[in-house]
Amino acid sequence: MNLAVTPAVTPELLLSRIRVVLCRPSHPGNIGAAARAMKTMGLASLVLVAPKQFPDPEADTRATGAVDLLGRAKITSTLSEALHGCGYAMALSARRRDLGPVPETSRSAVGRLLAEAAHGDVALVFGNETVGLSNEEIQLCQAAVSIPTNPDFSSLNLGSAVQVLCYECRMAAYGDLPPLAGQGVTAFSSAAASHDEVEGFFEHLVAVMSHSGFYNPAQPGRLLPKLRRLFGRVRLEKDEVNILRGILSSTQQKTGHGRRED
Amino acid sequence: MNLAVTPAVTPELLLSRIRVVLCRPSHPGNIGAAARAMKTMGLASLVLVAPKQFPDPEADTRATGAVDLLGRAKITSTLSEALHGCGYAMALSARRRDLGPVPETSRSAVGRLLAEAAHGDVALVFGNETVGLSNEEIQLCQAAVSIPTNPDFSSLNLGSAVQVLCYECRMAAYGDLPPLAGQGVTAFSSAAASHDEVEGFFEHLVAVMSHSGFYNPAQPGRLLPKLRRLFGRVRLEKDEVNILRGILSSTQQKTGHGRRED
Repeated sequence: MNLAVTPAVTPELLLSRIRVVLCRPSHPGNIGAAARAMKTMGLASLVLVAPKQFPDPEADTRATGAVDLLGRAKITSTLSEALHGCGYAMALSARRRDLGPVPETSRSAVGRLLAEAAHGDVALVFGNETVGLSNEEIQLCQAAVSIPTNPDFSSLNLGSAVQVLCYECRMAAYGDLPPLAGQGVTAFSSAAASHDEVEGFFEHLVAVMSHSGFYNPAQPGRLLPKLRRLFGRVRLEKDEVNILRGILSSTQQKTGHGRRED
Repeated sequence: MNLAVTPAVTPELLLSRIRVVLCRPSHPGNIGAAARAMKTMGLASLVLVAPKQFPDPEADTRATGAVDLLGRAKITSTLSEALHGCGYAMALSARRRDLGPVPETSRSAVGRLLAEAAHGDVALVFGNETVGLSNEEIQLCQAAVSIPTNPDFSSLNLGSAVQVLCYECRMAAYGDLPPLAGQGVTAFSSAAASHDEVEGFFEHLVAVMSHSGFYNPAQPGRLLPKLRRLFGRVRLEKDEVNILRGILSSTQQKTGHGRRED
């Protein structure tokens, strides 16, 4: 019997569960602008992946009254670290990629992000000002969002992109949010798997496929991106990760392939 | 009789009829940021009322690819002049004023602005960074708009406020936006798997799980319903069914379990 008290899902709680992740930002001014944009909309959790220059006075200047967010910002060296404990990550992506999730328009995408935030921590992931996100980074995210822009000039400033999406988050959290309670939930549902649990499953799957010869790490091709796309769409639950890993373990025992105890 | 041909009211026409008016801006950087924000959303008409410093290199820098808007910006000495020929003006106002129109929330206010734009030129009016709009200026406007913000930190940057409202203008002009090019499709996509293809995968999976001992047909429990729920959510594609069955076949070959040629 689960005696844990579930906190009421308030707009403030939903917004507090959204971390904004900036990958390899080049200009400290944009980090400050992002912090200010977040705070005006009630978001507080900023993560910087390998920032070129931080802390920096220019970041403080542009943050104005949001320097507290800069002071509490977490700095990591990889996106994977930044997503630790996060159940759902959404990448800003201006264009369609061959790999990775298909971008959905900002308003509906953010509605989905908020629905996920009802279950736990989520992330909005932004790329470098010039080169955006790498394919590897995009593939760590379960969803992608694009902001509709003028096709002749789609060059949104990083701070502005953060502002627009944080604004949509606030509107969704307080506004006519699609009903969350009961959405997609059945008697079978368990909590969403975290980033690390899903990654653990992928590692396990790769080990089994390598051992069986289906996957050759020396000639990877597009197999892994395709599998990430498949399981990224489904939004695995904890219970499902356990089942899938159970299936993998059982075939390993059958083949005498190294027992896993993790 | 009016023989003038009425142009079709397209989203582009509506956006072209919205002029953005900045009253007494202090920082040229914000003028540049506003121009960039406008252009990303397809707005082009910028009017500056008594700017403190303009033109200025800082404005050009922050505008990046939108310097053309700066070059065509109209400069006036009063708001009244700036609104010449304008049928409807909406002022950004964070707070309720004793005088002037009552602010309406951004999304619905912008909807109204676009409806007015169907009849002619309209304006979005922004005040000075520190003191906002004067009572006299507010009273020259027919409507007021406020952007929902964190009550503890409502200090939106001027460029960010322009960005949010221009974004709402674009969203409203395009309405239920046409899907992003190719939405739902990536270079990886293949056709949805048929019922029998999905069933063939399930049979294959059950065979592997039974052989490995993970699934006991005599005590089925809820394993199969859970797996059906998982793969039912994802809407498998043909290509994905082939990959999953390839993984299953490769583990079968490893265990010497009956080769499948189907």
